[in-house]
Amino acid sequence: MADLATDLAAEVALAGQWFDHLRQHSRTRLGVTRASYGEGEQMAHDLMRRIGRDLGLEERIDAAGNLYLTLPGRDRSRPAIMTGSHLDSVPEGGNYDGAAGVVAGMAMLARWRRSGRQPRQDITVMGVRAEELSWFSAPYIGSRAAFGLLEPEALDRCRRPDTGRTLAQHMAEAGFEPERIRARQPQLEASAIRCFLELHIEQGPLLMQKGLPVGIVTGIRGNLRYRDCHVSGRYGHAGAEPRESRRDAVFAGAEFAHRLEQLWSEEETAGRDLVATVGRFHTDTDVHTMTKIPGEVWFTMDIRSEDNAVLLEIDRRLRAIAIAIGTRRGVSIDLGAFTNALPGPIDPDLRRRLEALARGLSIPAMPIASGAGHDAAVFGNCGVPTAMIFVRNDHGSHNPHEAMDLVDFALGLKLLVAAVEDLDGTAAA
Amino acid sequence: MADLATDLAAEVALAGQWFDHLRQHSRTRLGVTRASYGEGEQMAHDLMRRIGRDLGLEERIDAAGNLYLTLPGRDRSRPAIMTGSHLDSVPEGGNYDGAAGVVAGMAMLARWRRSGRQPRQDITVMGVRAEELSWFSAPYIGSRAAFGLLEPEALDRCRRPDTGRTLAQHMAEAGFEPERIRARQPQLEASAIRCFLELHIEQGPLLMQKGLPVGIVTGIRGNLRYRDCHVSGRYGHAGAEPRESRRDAVFAGAEFAHRLEQLWSEEETAGRDLVATVGRFHTDTDVHTMTKIPGEVWFTMDIRSEDNAVLLEIDRRLRAIAIAIGTRRGVSIDLGAFTNALPGPIDPDLRRRLEALARGLSIPAMPIASGAGHDAAVFGNCGVPTAMIFVRNDHGSHNPHEAMDLVDFALGLKLLVAAVEDLDGTAAA
Repeated sequence: MADLATDLAAEVALAGQWFDHLRQHSRTRLGVTRASYGEGEQMAHDLMRRIGRDLGLEERIDAAGNLYLTLPGRDRSRPAIMTGSHLDSVPEGGNYDGAAGVVAGMAMLARWRRSGRQPRQDITVMGVRAEELSWFSAPYIGSRAAFGLLEPEALDRCRRPDTGRTLAQHMAEAGFEPERIRARQPQLEASAIRCFLELHIEQGPLLMQKGLPVGIVTGIRGNLRYRDCHVSGRYGHAGAEPRESRRDAVFAGAEFAHRLEQLWSEEETAGRDLVATVGRFHTDTDVHTMTKIPGEVWFTMDIRSEDNAVLLEIDRRLRAIAIAIGTRRGVSIDLGAFTNALPGPIDPDLRRRLEALARGLSIPAMPIASGAGHDAAVFGNCGVPTAMIFVRNDHGSHNPHEAMDLVDFALGLKLLVAAVEDLDGTAAA
Repeated sequence: MADLATDLAAEVALAGQWFDHLRQHSRTRLGVTRASYGEGEQMAHDLMRRIGRDLGLEERIDAAGNLYLTLPGRDRSRPAIMTGSHLDSVPEGGNYDGAAGVVAGMAMLARWRRSGRQPRQDITVMGVRAEELSWFSAPYIGSRAAFGLLEPEALDRCRRPDTGRTLAQHMAEAGFEPERIRARQPQLEASAIRCFLELHIEQGPLLMQKGLPVGIVTGIRGNLRYRDCHVSGRYGHAGAEPRESRRDAVFAGAEFAHRLEQLWSEEETAGRDLVATVGRFHTDTDVHTMTKIPGEVWFTMDIRSEDNAVLLEIDRRLRAIAIAIGTRRGVSIDLGAFTNALPGPIDPDLRRRLEALARGLSIPAMPIASGAGHDAAVFGNCGVPTAMIFVRNDHGSHNPHEAMDLVDFALGLKLLVAAVEDLDGTAAA
């Protein structure tokens, strides 16, 4: 029996057409815009449904609007192999972030159809709703809603910046059932899913830097996010306040940021995965001036690791550092509220399987940590064996200049097709 | 012959009335506002002229609008003893910054008049124009214009933020002669001034902290000012960009600020006078966000010392640090243009004379560096023997809560009166 992954030219051509369709129908001033529960996202869902109908797939749309397109297996009682990703984008984003994973899934099912073979178990492509944080400020809305995990308060708290309306309102207006999501009715059962494979563009530059088309993800970093850190000191005359009685918020904040970076370096030296970013750091634009000791500073922290124990230890150490610096300098460094998104576990067997297949198919690939969050993290945390394939992408993501080469996509697709076929040929655990 | 400084009750009462008048006639929403070449400043000049007429003083107004009120001496050819300060304020400032020095001078001349004595040489009180940088962004406009030292370009470059009109326009509208200032015609000759004594509120908290009413200034700090320092790195994805390829502007800026503070600490340990402030430090509010590596930071530096050699050495070291940090991190740290205001030399003999008089009069006083700039610095740099008396002031200056106690003012006045009488009784060098 021929290997499905050996001849994908027709499916790659289809994928190219689908990408073109997506771009044409969601083009905005600089890039593409597919708002969560908005027009652009719906357009992408509609395209996938049309493709599903053309391929004769089973279609299901859940209470949160997630789309499931299924190629039925010979034994419908077996847990399904799932793949997919999200179909929304950031405002003025690129064409591939999210969409590449759904397009790859549909191309994979098209290949199955063309082969005329039926898989042992169902294979389902999921088009996930509302993954991007730009529209509603709660993570993984679609995939968490699917598992009955979305906090009900998020339905009313999160408002889309462009409309001012709540998530519940948008969900209802788009034709879905927010009250079932509020009641936490699961739309998916982890036990009915054999595994989840997500293909996604790499959002960082590592594959570009290493000259490799494909990455096999080692873990999806969780994060600690501090949106509202505040240093409170005292304004004063820049020339006349002596050093001992200063309560300088910038020098305190600078020392704190510098210590955070040192912590990061120490953890890295110790072989622990960590990334830390202070994305905003600012004095008060209404009050600050060159000749005044700065009395206040606000900053944010975004700290990520594949290992949540590392994150919790970093939080503990940062609090101690804040107290030590604050006490010594007569300022208070308040880290404020934070959120802790759990790292997404990658199944070691699945990952090894992908690595072996890549070697077998001579696909140049490297192990890579996922710095960004992905819907796959939700599946992983629900106990579904999960893996991810990254495709090289230039200029980063979340911007109009995002640039994935279709040749690289074809290699990622090849690995996905091979992995699903390989899983299909082996019994589920 | 009775000591003039022994009975100042009448003059302190007058000073209190003058302060009340100034406050009443320049009160704005929060504090007082006396714009350079504006209504409030003119009101203060008008008050001093009325007092001068009541005391029978000689009046002169120079081409820049500076006011000179002179008690003629027995020998008009001798160099004059001068005192005074400025009569403008920052917007919504306090009542005493500047005005205290002119009021003290007028009270001192009132005491001479009440004594019926005539000094050996002229004693002149100067009401200086436009000292505060809030209105026109050139330092010491009035006093530098008096010595023919104002850069002509400042007349056209500096625009008052509230009117948008230039310094030359405002000077002309107020009735003065900007073209003579542009031609650098001196309005004052250093050789005709025996010494300049300026009384001013302390703008820092040191006298409050030490519980002392009066300070005797050891030096007027000069400064280096960098208004537009810029760190240029590269924006990126907070989770996905590896450490080695990051070009993080906040971590670079934080390290730079931290190194500046360490330099300060080293200089202080070595016994060298230095103060450093990073008053503004900010990421780009239009672009920055928690989950993005910050690509740019802007900051300011205000660095002061009594010793200009220390300042120039700090500048040299900061540039080396900027290059070292920038090279290591793949960012550029551009310190931009800077200005260097020279420290104002304090005459050691005059300073010792003030210290001895304070001891003799049991006025609790301490030596103190002037962190802020003062018109006295211009006199000092023109070769006029110069000294300054600070009066305790709560809540700092340049704000509506500035609070000088009239009891403390009376002690500062006492020292000024004693110093002028003492100088009068000794021959000029």
